[in-house]
Amino acid sequence: MTTVATRPEVAAREEANLRAVERLATSRPLLVDVAPAGDVIPGLGHSTLLTSGAPLEPEQYTGVQRQAIVGGALFEGLASSPEEAWDAVVGGSIELAACHDHATVGSVAGVCSASMPVFVVEDAESGARGFCLLYEGRQPERLTFGVYNPAVADQLRFLRDVVAPTLHRALAETGPIEVKTVMRRALLAGDELHSRNTAATLFLTRELMPGFLSVARRDHDAVAATLGFIAASDQFFLHVGMASAKLAADSAHGVEGSSVVTAMTASCREFAIRLSGCGPAWFRAPVPIVAAKCFEGFSQDDVAPMPGESLIMETIGLGGSAAAAAFALSNYSGGTAALMRDMSESAYEFSVGEHPELRIPFFDGRGTALGIDAFRVVERGIVPRIHAGAADRRGGHIGAGVMTAPMECFEQACAGLAAAPATTTSP
Amino acid sequence: MTTVATRPEVAAREEANLRAVERLATSRPLLVDVAPAGDVIPGLGHSTLLTSGAPLEPEQYTGVQRQAIVGGALFEGLASSPEEAWDAVVGGSIELAACHDHATVGSVAGVCSASMPVFVVEDAESGARGFCLLYEGRQPERLTFGVYNPAVADQLRFLRDVVAPTLHRALAETGPIEVKTVMRRALLAGDELHSRNTAATLFLTRELMPGFLSVARRDHDAVAATLGFIAASDQFFLHVGMASAKLAADSAHGVEGSSVVTAMTASCREFAIRLSGCGPAWFRAPVPIVAAKCFEGFSQDDVAPMPGESLIMETIGLGGSAAAAAFALSNYSGGTAALMRDMSESAYEFSVGEHPELRIPFFDGRGTALGIDAFRVVERGIVPRIHAGAADRRGGHIGAGVMTAPMECFEQACAGLAAAPATTTSP
Repeated sequence: MTTVATRPEVAAREEANLRAVERLATSRPLLVDVAPAGDVIPGLGHSTLLTSGAPLEPEQYTGVQRQAIVGGALFEGLASSPEEAWDAVVGGSIELAACHDHATVGSVAGVCSASMPVFVVEDAESGARGFCLLYEGRQPERLTFGVYNPAVADQLRFLRDVVAPTLHRALAETGPIEVKTVMRRALLAGDELHSRNTAATLFLTRELMPGFLSVARRDHDAVAATLGFIAASDQFFLHVGMASAKLAADSAHGVEGSSVVTAMTASCREFAIRLSGCGPAWFRAPVPIVAAKCFEGFSQDDVAPMPGESLIMETIGLGGSAAAAAFALSNYSGGTAALMRDMSESAYEFSVGEHPELRIPFFDGRGTALGIDAFRVVERGIVPRIHAGAADRRGGHIGAGVMTAPMECFEQACAGLAAAPATTTSP
Repeated sequence: MTTVATRPEVAAREEANLRAVERLATSRPLLVDVAPAGDVIPGLGHSTLLTSGAPLEPEQYTGVQRQAIVGGALFEGLASSPEEAWDAVVGGSIELAACHDHATVGSVAGVCSASMPVFVVEDAESGARGFCLLYEGRQPERLTFGVYNPAVADQLRFLRDVVAPTLHRALAETGPIEVKTVMRRALLAGDELHSRNTAATLFLTRELMPGFLSVARRDHDAVAATLGFIAASDQFFLHVGMASAKLAADSAHGVEGSSVVTAMTASCREFAIRLSGCGPAWFRAPVPIVAAKCFEGFSQDDVAPMPGESLIMETIGLGGSAAAAAFALSNYSGGTAALMRDMSESAYEFSVGEHPELRIPFFDGRGTALGIDAFRVVERGIVPRIHAGAADRRGGHIGAGVMTAPMECFEQACAGLAAAPATTTSP
C-alpha cells in the first residue's frame, strides 16, 4: 500500500527529508564517559529494566528476551529467583521500558539495569546524549543472548567493577573522543561498523591509550585486564557506535513531514520503525528471522526470533548498507563480495543522501547512504538488509548473517505520515 | 628477448618454481627483537654502511641516495663533514654494501649503520633471519629520503635511544610475535602492506601491549613516547613486513632452475631483480620514476629517480599486487578502485601460485599472488606494478604512487636462467 501524494506534497516531504538528513550528517558524537546506567540515563530507576524493541505487554516477551529480562532482574538484585523475577515483571513492580524511549539502544535483548555501565555519548553542539551498554564479550553465553548463569554474572561484574571504572578514568584523562573520526577511519579499514568493528576497536583503543597508560601508573592490573578484554573483543566499538548512531537518529527525529526513518528495532515478536515526521508512533510487523551462517554445531533451524537494536547502525546507513566497506565479513556472516556490493548499492536506492565524511573506499570514496526514506523503500520495492548476530532458540550466540526488514513496516509508516497531524513540531 | 625452451625444460622450471613458491608460503617469520644493526646483522662492521639497490661503484651514487649515505656516515660519527664523509666513501675507508647481501632490506635510500636499530625477524623453523631499519616517522624530512640535519639526527637518536630499547624490552616480555598473523588480519582490514599498513600497525601494537604495559611499570615515559610515535606512524609495521618478506624471499632463493623472482630492488640508477635459480646475479635496467600523487606544493617534475627496497613486499605478492585489499589507498597514492582491482588481477597472471593464508577479501578470500615467474612476466607482457613513496629531487618525502618494473630486467633474467650453470644448488 503506497500513499498517493500530490507534487507539492512530495516536494514538501523531500525538503523535510533533506533537513532530517542534514541533522544525521552534522551530528557530532563525542564519547565522554562510561558510567552506571542509573546515574546517567534519564528516567531509569532502580526497579526499571530497559529492553529492546517497540514496547510490548510484559506477558508478550518470550524466549531469549524473556530469559534476558529475568537474568537482568536477578543480576540487579530485584528478585531472588527466576520465578519471582518474572512475577514481578508481570505484576509491574519491576517496570519494563523501551531502550529507544530513553535515548538508549540495546544489543540483542538489550536488557539494561541501573547498575550496569553504559557508554555515554554526547553531541558536541547540542549536548544531547545517547547511551548503550558495554559489549559483553565474545563468549557465546551472554545475558544479552538470553543466558544467565554464574559465568555470565561474573562477566557482568567484571565489566561493572573493572572495565567500566578503568574506561571512566581513562576518558577523564584523554577528554572526549571524536567518534566520527574513529568511524571514518574504520570504514577505510574494512569495517562496516555493525558486524565488523575490528579496526574501529583498535582506533578507539589508540585514542584511549594515553589515558590507559596514565591510569596504569596507579592501577596496572585493572588496565591490563581492561586492555586484555578489549583486545579479545573485536566488536567492542560496536556499542560506542550504537550510542552515537542513536544520538544522530534522535537528532533527526521530529522534522514535520519527513519520511526519514529514525529508528528500526526488533523485539522477540516484532520489527518496528519510526519516522522523523510521525512522532512516537511505531510501525510494526512480525520480526523476520536472521538468515545466518552458524557456528559449528548449529544450523538455521536453531535461530531464534530475535530482539535487537544494533540495527540503529543501518538506520544511519552503516552496517549492511555499508557492506562494501567490509568484504572480509563473509568469513563471519557469510555472503560474497558481490552480495556486499549489492547490499550497499541498493542502500543508495532507498536513501535520501550520502554522508559527507563517512566514505566507502570501494566506491572511490562515495559517502555512505544516509537517511532511509520510507517512501523510496516502498516505491522502489527495496528494503534495508541488516547485518545481525544470530541467537539460539535456547539462548546463546550461534552465528551471524542478514536480516531483511519487513516491507509492511514501511508501508504502514507511509500511511502513518500521510495521516500525521501537522502539529509534529520541528525543533 | 624470450628464451625458447623445450617442453621438458619448461616442466622442470615449473616444478622448480612450485618448490620456490612452497618456501615462500611456508616461511614463518617471528618478530623476535629490536637491536642495533651492528650487533645482529652478519658482516656489518662499524665502518660499513648498507644501502639500497644492486651494488654500484661508490662514485655512481647520486642525488637522494648519495645524500643519505653522507648523512649516515655523519650520524655514525665516521666523518665530521659531508665532504670528509664522501671522500671516505670514495676512498673506501667507509665501505658500502648492498642491504640484500646482508639479509636486510632498506627503505628508500636504505642507509643502515652499526648503531641504528633494526627489526630482527626469525624464521620459526629454520632460524634464518631478516632485518630492516625502523620506520623513521612521517615527517617529510628523513635520512632515508636524503635529508640530514639536526632535526633528522634528533629523530634518529630518539629511535635509537627511546623507541628501540622500549621495543626490545616489550618483546622480551611478550616473546616472539607471529608476523604472518598480523599480515593476515591486516589484509582483511584494508592494508596491502606496502603503502598502507594502518591496520597492521594497530594489530602489532595490540600484540606488544602486554609488554609495553609491563615496561611502563618501570619506565612510563619511554613507553608513552614510544606509543605516541607508533600512534602517529601508520606505516610503522611496514619495516617489520619488509624484514619478514626478505626472510621469505631469501628462503625461496637458490632453487635450481627456478625463474621465481627473489629480489626486486632499486638504487638511484637502476632497478634490478634476482631469480631463485640464478645465484647472486642481478639483472639490471635503468630505474623508472614513480608516477606519484604529490603532496600539496609538489608535482611529478619534482620526483627523483629513487632507490628503495620496500618492493620486497611486491616480490612476495603484497603491495601493488594486493592492491585490491586496500581500496582506501587512493587517498594517499592516487588511482581508483578499478585500477587497484586491475593491479591485483594482473599479478595473478605473472605469478606461480596463491598464498594459502594471506587472502584478499574482495576476491572472496582468494590467496594473494605468490611467486613472480620471470617467464610469465615476459610471455604475458605484464610487469609488476609497485606501490611506492616519492622522493623530492632535493631530498624529502613528497608523495606516493606507482612504479612500473622494467620489462628489460625480466628478459635478461630469463636469458640468465637459461645460461645458469646447473651447479646452483638447491639446499
